[in-house]
Amino acid sequence: MDEFGFIAKYLSALAGPEGLDLKDDVAVWKAPKGLEVVISMDTQVEGVHFPDGKFDAQTAEKLISVNISDLVSKGADPIGYFLSLTLSEHVDVEALEIFCRGLANAQNRYGIKLWGGDTTRTKGKNVLTVTLVGTVPVGKTVLRSGAQVGDLVCVTGCIGDSYLGLKTVLNQMDKFGSQSSYWESAYHLPEPPFALRQAIRKYATAALDISDGLLADAGHIADVSGVGIDIFLTTIPLSTASTKWVLGECDHQKARVKLATGGDDYQVLMCVPEQKISALKKQATKTGIALTVIGKITDGSGVKCRDSQGNEVKIDKPGYTHF
Amino acid sequence: MDEFGFIAKYLSALAGPEGLDLKDDVAVWKAPKGLEVVISMDTQVEGVHFPDGKFDAQTAEKLISVNISDLVSKGADPIGYFLSLTLSEHVDVEALEIFCRGLANAQNRYGIKLWGGDTTRTKGKNVLTVTLVGTVPVGKTVLRSGAQVGDLVCVTGCIGDSYLGLKTVLNQMDKFGSQSSYWESAYHLPEPPFALRQAIRKYATAALDISDGLLADAGHIADVSGVGIDIFLTTIPLSTASTKWVLGECDHQKARVKLATGGDDYQVLMCVPEQKISALKKQATKTGIALTVIGKITDGSGVKCRDSQGNEVKIDKPGYTHF
Repeated sequence: MDEFGFIAKYLSALAGPEGLDLKDDVAVWKAPKGLEVVISMDTQVEGVHFPDGKFDAQTAEKLISVNISDLVSKGADPIGYFLSLTLSEHVDVEALEIFCRGLANAQNRYGIKLWGGDTTRTKGKNVLTVTLVGTVPVGKTVLRSGAQVGDLVCVTGCIGDSYLGLKTVLNQMDKFGSQSSYWESAYHLPEPPFALRQAIRKYATAALDISDGLLADAGHIADVSGVGIDIFLTTIPLSTASTKWVLGECDHQKARVKLATGGDDYQVLMCVPEQKISALKKQATKTGIALTVIGKITDGSGVKCRDSQGNEVKIDKPGYTHF
Repeated sequence: MDEFGFIAKYLSALAGPEGLDLKDDVAVWKAPKGLEVVISMDTQVEGVHFPDGKFDAQTAEKLISVNISDLVSKGADPIGYFLSLTLSEHVDVEALEIFCRGLANAQNRYGIKLWGGDTTRTKGKNVLTVTLVGTVPVGKTVLRSGAQVGDLVCVTGCIGDSYLGLKTVLNQMDKFGSQSSYWESAYHLPEPPFALRQAIRKYATAALDISDGLLADAGHIADVSGVGIDIFLTTIPLSTASTKWVLGECDHQKARVKLATGGDDYQVLMCVPEQKISALKKQATKTGIALTVIGKITDGSGVKCRDSQGNEVKIDKPGYTHF
């Protein structure tokens, strides 16, 4: 099957009208009045962001979810995406069909359509890139730069499951039975808090999604907003499985730091004025998304991770860099 | 140098205000009234679209130019782009600096700015993806689908230089002295007819850029527009260097077919009503861009390549597929 046959058979079925049935080189879109356009681009590399040899429906869903995560954290409504598939010779037509089923699942979940892209081959490893387009009412995009001294710092979902999932996938964990498959699933299928995006743009002063590690990403907000952030380590929300893991480790604090710096969580870290917290929490409850206050914005600089006594916990490496 | 250091040092200098100094995960842009948004995505792979080991200013300029080519052929004005760099371990900071100089050159030439992207590493080959955003007055985007029976088919620039350039780079050509470096340069630094984009949207009924090969790309217009296209082989414009090469080959016709199917030209193939040709030609002359009529739209289907007597020339493979 050649490029055009593949596009015609599998990808065209995923296209929205803006994608012109993928029969042109471009997408054409009239941005609705009163909205600003928010665009992210995220690349996933075989052997870096997903295991060598893995190319299935989960790979597709994760690729879409990590981009959705970017837009959700900005309070944006995603609408369409561009997909660049650079595929190794190991990817055959059967694998592509399964991959496209994952794309279809993700499209349905997030209400987006394929608008265009490119398909190429490489003698190297698979490289998958998505550019995701969304909208926000003008002036309402939540940036990293808006944090105010006194804001509370909240996080959605649980932190660290994906880190333990990666360690499980890499066979760096002892056997944990059902916990292992829970962590693996968190790693392969991150679930950004999609249903909370409109509340985020209503209540948050600054936000981002956690990909490098909670403490590293908090640092990005601190830097760009020109504020300090205190994070209270023991308040960071953990799943039952990960709490069990922490309690099984010799050094509980060190274990918690690992989860707070492991990354790949694709949850949203946001800063919210204290008087708006209860309204935001109500929305979170309504949408079934956990929301936890884990710190506050200070007039200092950088991130300080503190134990339950308020003492600073020394952090060697606050997160992962892909480069 | 880590990801953030690289972004801060080299890429931030290339960013437009929509890119938020590359300090956020997204770009934010308010699309101007009365315009529709046109977006393309194009990927270049080491060892496929550019030679193994090549990563320099030309690589950057070509990456931008092939995307500019897509938008120019639609009559769009490019404004901003997203860049995904997935780099092998062979790319060091010095190479990155040189690559970024190429980006800066291309940005200046086309009046665009960097809006965002992603930088990642791979154990495989370099994969470079650009998503380019442009605008067109509402309803004026030139698609592949608008060709009308009776339209003349025109092409900008010269065809086939890049094909001979690739053969030169791959050491598949005998020595041709200065011709070789001319062809190589055409391959490494394609020059889409940027200055003609507004005339294209004013006069063309259908258009695309030539990447797979002139005859293959003409076939895309024929298919999507539901028309036939006659292309007259000997009218296809060739450079002096490529004309010399044709005349040196035993079978002149076969040589011309190679140039018309080689691809990578990044010139624009467009369909224009006969009564508008002279106005379009005037614009082409004004902007210093060669424009040649090479065929016409018929009420048949598919592309027929004809010799100077009007007899059909059999084509085995009308173009390249990357997949």
